[in-house]
Amino acid sequence: MHLMEKRPEDMNLKEIFIEMKNISELMVDLAYSSVLFDSEAIADEVNALEETMGELNHQLTIRALLASRTREEAEQISEILNVASAIKDISNHAQNISEIVSRDLDIHSVILESLKHTDEKIFRVQLEEQSPLIGASLRESQLASHIGVTVIAVRRGKRWIYNPKKRFVFCDEDILIARGTEEGHLILKEIAKGRRSKW
Amino acid sequence: MHLMEKRPEDMNLKEIFIEMKNISELMVDLAYSSVLFDSEAIADEVNALEETMGELNHQLTIRALLASRTREEAEQISEILNVASAIKDISNHAQNISEIVSRDLDIHSVILESLKHTDEKIFRVQLEEQSPLIGASLRESQLASHIGVTVIAVRRGKRWIYNPKKRFVFCDEDILIARGTEEGHLILKEIAKGRRSKW
Repeated sequence: MHLMEKRPEDMNLKEIFIEMKNISELMVDLAYSSVLFDSEAIADEVNALEETMGELNHQLTIRALLASRTREEAEQISEILNVASAIKDISNHAQNISEIVSRDLDIHSVILESLKHTDEKIFRVQLEEQSPLIGASLRESQLASHIGVTVIAVRRGKRWIYNPKKRFVFCDEDILIARGTEEGHLILKEIAKGRRSKW
Repeated sequence: MHLMEKRPEDMNLKEIFIEMKNISELMVDLAYSSVLFDSEAIADEVNALEETMGELNHQLTIRALLASRTREEAEQISEILNVASAIKDISNHAQNISEIVSRDLDIHSVILESLKHTDEKIFRVQLEEQSPLIGASLRESQLASHIGVTVIAVRRGKRWIYNPKKRFVFCDEDILIARGTEEGHLILKEIAKGRRSKW
């Protein structure tokens, strides 16, 4: 529930819908990350988010039922249920992807190699003490709008921070799991090593 | 099939897997776009991609079956089939999302408003003749790595170009459907109007 500022019970239909879409996208990113880095911790987070998703979908259904008074309203609101259900199903399949991490087998090289060569890729970068990112917030860093890199999760010591908020502040030795283009990856590597101060 | 440089029959396991992941992500983006802009043309493209996805999955299965000689190979390769099947299922649910476009009802404002307020949003921008993008290729524009904006589709007159390649060249009056942050959206609007020449 760390992802949400509000509890599902206190959210309106629109807030729930937005949260479901955000979580579903996060789950897909995390699912691929868990496979790429063979991380059970990330796979566990995908499972936890799936539970959150179930609760959100339940609250959305309740609100939709209460909001439908006329036949036309019911028809329109049924589309919200349809789309929400598709979003929930997408997250469910994300979980199917991360499930392979918990097995004993090594992940097949075709999967690993493929995940490194898609249009948008997921990568891991560790911040060194001379990196200009240290002490900066995610908002200040402008990684998304300046180099097209989205930070999905951060590993700090033994702790994981998923979907860091704008006010999240980077620390020395943070390991970032991020999504972006190959060029964004190269730039972030330089920033992480303190070899680049502007972007 | 416009998306692929090779036919599925001529691709190896890894190439097929990469293509499936790229297409599944494109389908999710296009599905949300079709709803947001109430576009049957985009919804039709989602349907066409779903067919491509089915063909890719078939070819992947054939290759996987032929590659499994020992029990251990079969176990490992079965994971490729699992992940590919989850990717195919995700694209299938993307199609469920775009399906609501073909109905006669107006799309509920909760859906439209929600899609405008997620972490990453989809937006539409038209290029004006003074835009510095005109005559530039997608590669030269560096929209992804400099402002974090991914161009999903372009409407040129009555024609649609989906998932434009790096060599795609922008023309006056092109309508871009793109994904990115709110800041990326604002910058692209300025570039499209010719009010900004550097980014």
